[in-house]
Amino acid sequence: MEEYIPSIGRLVDCFAALPGVGRKTAARLAYWVLDMNNEDAENFADAIISARKNVKQCPVCHNLSDSEICKICSDEKRDKSVICVVEGPRDVGAFEKTREYRGVYHVLHGLISPMDGISPEQIFVKDLVVRASDETVKEVIMATNPTVEGESTAIYISRLIKPLGVKVTRLAYGMPVGGNLEHADEVTLFRALMGRSEI
Amino acid sequence: MEEYIPSIGRLVDCFAALPGVGRKTAARLAYWVLDMNNEDAENFADAIISARKNVKQCPVCHNLSDSEICKICSDEKRDKSVICVVEGPRDVGAFEKTREYRGVYHVLHGLISPMDGISPEQIFVKDLVVRASDETVKEVIMATNPTVEGESTAIYISRLIKPLGVKVTRLAYGMPVGGNLEHADEVTLFRALMGRSEI
Repeated sequence: MEEYIPSIGRLVDCFAALPGVGRKTAARLAYWVLDMNNEDAENFADAIISARKNVKQCPVCHNLSDSEICKICSDEKRDKSVICVVEGPRDVGAFEKTREYRGVYHVLHGLISPMDGISPEQIFVKDLVVRASDETVKEVIMATNPTVEGESTAIYISRLIKPLGVKVTRLAYGMPVGGNLEHADEVTLFRALMGRSEI
Repeated sequence: MEEYIPSIGRLVDCFAALPGVGRKTAARLAYWVLDMNNEDAENFADAIISARKNVKQCPVCHNLSDSEICKICSDEKRDKSVICVVEGPRDVGAFEKTREYRGVYHVLHGLISPMDGISPEQIFVKDLVVRASDETVKEVIMATNPTVEGESTAIYISRLIKPLGVKVTRLAYGMPVGGNLEHADEVTLFRALMGRSEI
């Protein structure tokens, strides 16, 4: 006999297809769903379907959105003169969690990576240049990840935007808060040293 | 603004309600689902609904089943004279994976645990005694986990079944295959020593 009966096997397969979920974890999740009350299970299934149906891309910043223009772009209180450029929609969530940033975003949906065959045309660079050309825009913050691709994408974009007379900035490098000097790699420590400020 | 837009937030909540899935993993899974093709997402949602709708409990062994009587109980080739008693449906899967066991099962759906207020009446002990009373049954294998509750449930059940003239056995204790003597706890090592056999 198979390890699972078909109905359960199918659910295990679905969970196992998710990233970072192995067969054993998938089985644990599947049995968990079987033990859920009906309402929760239906809510779960419906959340999957409706998330995919309702979530669109904002035509302004390309962030994922429930509405036509996303909440941030349509918020009167957000500062439209500052654009924070990020790789993906999840980065927007990370910034929003700080509750400190009041500007708007631009989601590239990828990074320039010749190794992976991703050219500037395949991410939303062109739209960003158009947005930055608007005279209301004063600053573009490059907030791509501190990796080789993130770095080179930031440099590439800054070269396109600086000639427009817009200030281009980059996130600070340094020690993570709560970090341990002993465990910091040399490059991070060097950047933390270079970026030191008076107290 | 919230960290996620409502449609995504709802999906994140659903994933985060699963065991062992934190908010960050839940967000990763939710974005993964958003990137799925339509067919996969619908299949996922439907698998949740139909697993819960189709999965019943076999009236004989109480294992989960797609059909009225489960596949194992209705299989002519399985040896009905041996009943393997396990705590939950997942344990059946573990035994089936070995492809060595040819008897049938009895799923208790829990273990006797006075600490958690679980008495023998709340698990399927009574049904097991009825099954074991049938003259075709020759052996009952107690395959509950080697924990305090598993142990005491095994002893409790064996006292009920032995008087029926049925052989009651317990899984062997010992070193796990591929295990390391150095890392084995004393109790396991002691049981492995006690259970040694001639080679």
